[in-house]
Amino acid sequence: MKLNCDMGESFGAWSMGQDAEIMCYVDMSNIACGFHAADPNIMSHTVDLAIQQGVAIGAHPGYPDLQGFGRKDMTFSFDDLVNMTLYQVGALQAICAAKNTSVTYVKPHGALYNLMMRDMNVYRALLTAVSQLSVKVPLMIMANADQQTYINAASDAGVDLLFEAFCDRAYTDEGALQSRQITGAVYNNVEAIVAQATQLITKQSVTSFTGKELAMKADTICIHGDGPLALESAKRISDVMSAK
Amino acid sequence: MKLNCDMGESFGAWSMGQDAEIMCYVDMSNIACGFHAADPNIMSHTVDLAIQQGVAIGAHPGYPDLQGFGRKDMTFSFDDLVNMTLYQVGALQAICAAKNTSVTYVKPHGALYNLMMRDMNVYRALLTAVSQLSVKVPLMIMANADQQTYINAASDAGVDLLFEAFCDRAYTDEGALQSRQITGAVYNNVEAIVAQATQLITKQSVTSFTGKELAMKADTICIHGDGPLALESAKRISDVMSAK
Amino acid sequence: MKLNCDMGESFGAWSMGQDAEIMCYVDMSNIACGFHAADPNIMSHTVDLAIQQGVAIGAHPGYPDLQGFGRKDMTFSFDDLVNMTLYQVGALQAICAAKNTSVTYVKPHGALYNLMMRDMNVYRALLTAVSQLSVKVPLMIMANADQQTYINAASDAGVDLLFEAFCDRAYTDEGALQSRQITGAVYNNVEAIVAQATQLITKQSVTSFTGKELAMKADTICIHGDGPLALESAKRISDVMSAK
Amino acid sequence: MKLNCDMGESFGAWSMGQDAEIMCYVDMSNIACGFHAADPNIMSHTVDLAIQQGVAIGAHPGYPDLQGFGRKDMTFSFDDLVNMTLYQVGALQAICAAKNTSVTYVKPHGALYNLMMRDMNVYRALLTAVSQLSVKVPLMIMANADQQTYINAASDAGVDLLFEAFCDRAYTDEGALQSRQITGAVYNNVEAIVAQATQLITKQSVTSFTGKELAMKADTICIHGDGPLALESAKRISDVMSAK
Repeated sequence: MKLNCDMGESFGAWSMGQDAEIMCYVDMSNIACGFHAADPNIMSHTVDLAIQQGVAIGAHPGYPDLQGFGRKDMTFSFDDLVNMTLYQVGALQAICAAKNTSVTYVKPHGALYNLMMRDMNVYRALLTAVSQLSVKVPLMIMANADQQTYINAASDAGVDLLFEAFCDRAYTDEGALQSRQITGAVYNNVEAIVAQATQLITKQSVTSFTGKELAMKADTICIHGDGPLALESAKRISDVMSAK
Repeated sequence: MKLNCDMGESFGAWSMGQDAEIMCYVDMSNIACGFHAADPNIMSHTVDLAIQQGVAIGAHPGYPDLQGFGRKDMTFSFDDLVNMTLYQVGALQAICAAKNTSVTYVKPHGALYNLMMRDMNVYRALLTAVSQLSVKVPLMIMANADQQTYINAASDAGVDLLFEAFCDRAYTDEGALQSRQITGAVYNNVEAIVAQATQLITKQSVTSFTGKELAMKADTICIHGDGPLALESAKRISDVMSAK
Repeated sequence: MKLNCDMGESFGAWSMGQDAEIMCYVDMSNIACGFHAADPNIMSHTVDLAIQQGVAIGAHPGYPDLQGFGRKDMTFSFDDLVNMTLYQVGALQAICAAKNTSVTYVKPHGALYNLMMRDMNVYRALLTAVSQLSVKVPLMIMANADQQTYINAASDAGVDLLFEAFCDRAYTDEGALQSRQITGAVYNNVEAIVAQATQLITKQSVTSFTGKELAMKADTICIHGDGPLALESAKRISDVMSAK
Repeated sequence: MKLNCDMGESFGAWSMGQDAEIMCYVDMSNIACGFHAADPNIMSHTVDLAIQQGVAIGAHPGYPDLQGFGRKDMTFSFDDLVNMTLYQVGALQAICAAKNTSVTYVKPHGALYNLMMRDMNVYRALLTAVSQLSVKVPLMIMANADQQTYINAASDAGVDLLFEAFCDRAYTDEGALQSRQITGAVYNNVEAIVAQATQLITKQSVTSFTGKELAMKADTICIHGDGPLALESAKRISDVMSAK
């Protein structure tokens, strides 16, 4: 089980996150590619951080929406999605190649990630883009109850998948993320976050919002890199993973 | 001797140039990478056109300045230049890889190209970026009187060069381009354009604005893809090249 | 009855439309404000053209989406919509003020216009923005069967409306625009365009796609400024209007 | 003597500065207009803050360069500068008008400000833009030894000036700002900042880097709103001003 975190989400003079600190505790860094956050300099700097800590580098492509941080719903055609994904991943690949490292997976960002999980056409566009990269890398998607549909489509595209679970968000009984509108949907204490991570690591399950245990087989746990709990949570989950 | 042309300089709903027509007559297409012109869809479409006509694909990175078409002077640090070049070339490389083709050279655009020829620090930043690409490709620069300085720096960086000459612009006695402010600096008839191209092809020289013959060893001639003379000029120069 | 046309939709080095020619025949120019098209220079130039021809100037705000020309669906909050509308209209107001003229109406563009007609919350955001401008100007919306709902909301906001009809698009029996996917939905001959405009002018009605006559009370007819039929259509409809 | 501070320099999800805290202590807020920082929502929010604290609102236009925060040198024509200034100031004027307040001065940002002080043509472009606004407002420029040239040009344009001095930067003997490259050019303790402000307020002078007293007649002192010293400096200078 690996710990992944969104990284490199600063932009120009604006900084976001605690990349240098968090990088010490994670296994995989999802690096923004300049469309929803980051610019070529920040991408370069974030790749340097990942190299220093021996952390895997994933491309984290998003919608072309700096102002909305890629969280705004936008409508794109299949070809738009394929081309914008190739563009962003390629940009990061070149920055990695310049440092003798490489992109080893792709995880879409924000509204693009959410839409990928709801709309099979968007998911297929992302699979298409990933399948057309110069090297074979997996696509990271959300672990959920019905993984078979996603696995079948990925298999058709010849793309491997990585499933991620969340340790700081409550799950519904159906294995989806509880809406952020609901009080308690986002955990605001480290104990709850570490507990859910520990359960994912040791029992491959989560306990839903209503108390039901759900099987949840994940390859990686996502931790958010900003907020006051990020650093301590990352450190403690990292310890649990190491102990296992 | 090859004929090269800037391509893929449309953007979103706005089109520029006559790419489909010109592509039939050129050997090398300098494809914009989304900073001064183009977007991922237009890049993809332009790569398709190049593949169809068997034309070599070059990355044509520029300043991040869509409104100014990359023609506005801007000040960037060495690292800025390296990273923005890697970013743009990488983006095009991925779009090429998806179509089983590849970027085979890099030619900077507009104000970046001009500054590269005037400022050795900028030139070295571009050499650095090209030297760090995942594949070894040459950098295209302007043929001029004092090529040795450029050759030495490229050699230090381990980068090959391609020298290009212009067929539709008058040269000064020193082998620089005559300023566009001077009447007659830009040729506005096909005969003059074809004549200069023919001289470059057959005699490796140009005749300067004042009538002096200058040795001008070029690997490729640049033709501009817009304007009323572009298509006929391309066709006729292509014929001269074939005949040679 | 006035003829209105979208204007100033060039951007940087890219041109679109035949503004100088069309401006001679229209009464109202909907001038892009830099978010979906145009830049400050093009806005300034287009205002100059409108002044020269004595044409009314309307602000034509759109989504912040140059690549998609403001035609892509995007999700914005109420406050987002208010603020982005104020921003764009204000920018054009200042450019007008510098030339001793002013913005006399607001017509939203593209996906924003379409969503305004489908989503009362978006419509109310636009009414709010227009009601908060430094001068009282009307909002232009689409003439349709059920105008009362729109009129009531505008009245609540203290905003006057202008209703526009289309002369180059087929209408459904319900008075909506026939989908562009349907063959015949967009007229491709001048006679059909002029005929529908004439019917709107002389009979305040349109004949639907299935042949039904629908009452259609409009203050203005919209003509598209690009395409091969634009200029001749504008000229002939202008003649019909003058003759009336 | 007034205290002014750059405000509203966040962008989308990225925040910068301590606007809410600093606003309590300043008299004039230079509000970014979306080109080098801010977006319509942040502009709206910052205007609200200024209104709440009764702080004057100035437009703070910059170069169209979000990534470079408007600090990168860029070359624009006279008309470019006029139009981009009108655009940005107009956008803020409309947001102000919606809240029944108004822009009462203009202060250019970053590289544009610096170039204005070095290049009379750029200065004249800014004067032209300000003179063409719908309301008469002053332009804020840097107080320096040779103010007469600036005053004459402003007078020709019919524009009033506000002169600002800096309390956290060392001055050369000629009354220019000492280069940031020189150690000690930027003050990093509150006492030095407050001392220079106090001297500006009480004696209309500064003591140069080499210890020479220079007359420096300023209408306003600029304080930077970020950094660890900003808040305490603002508070203490505000006290000095009140005591006077």
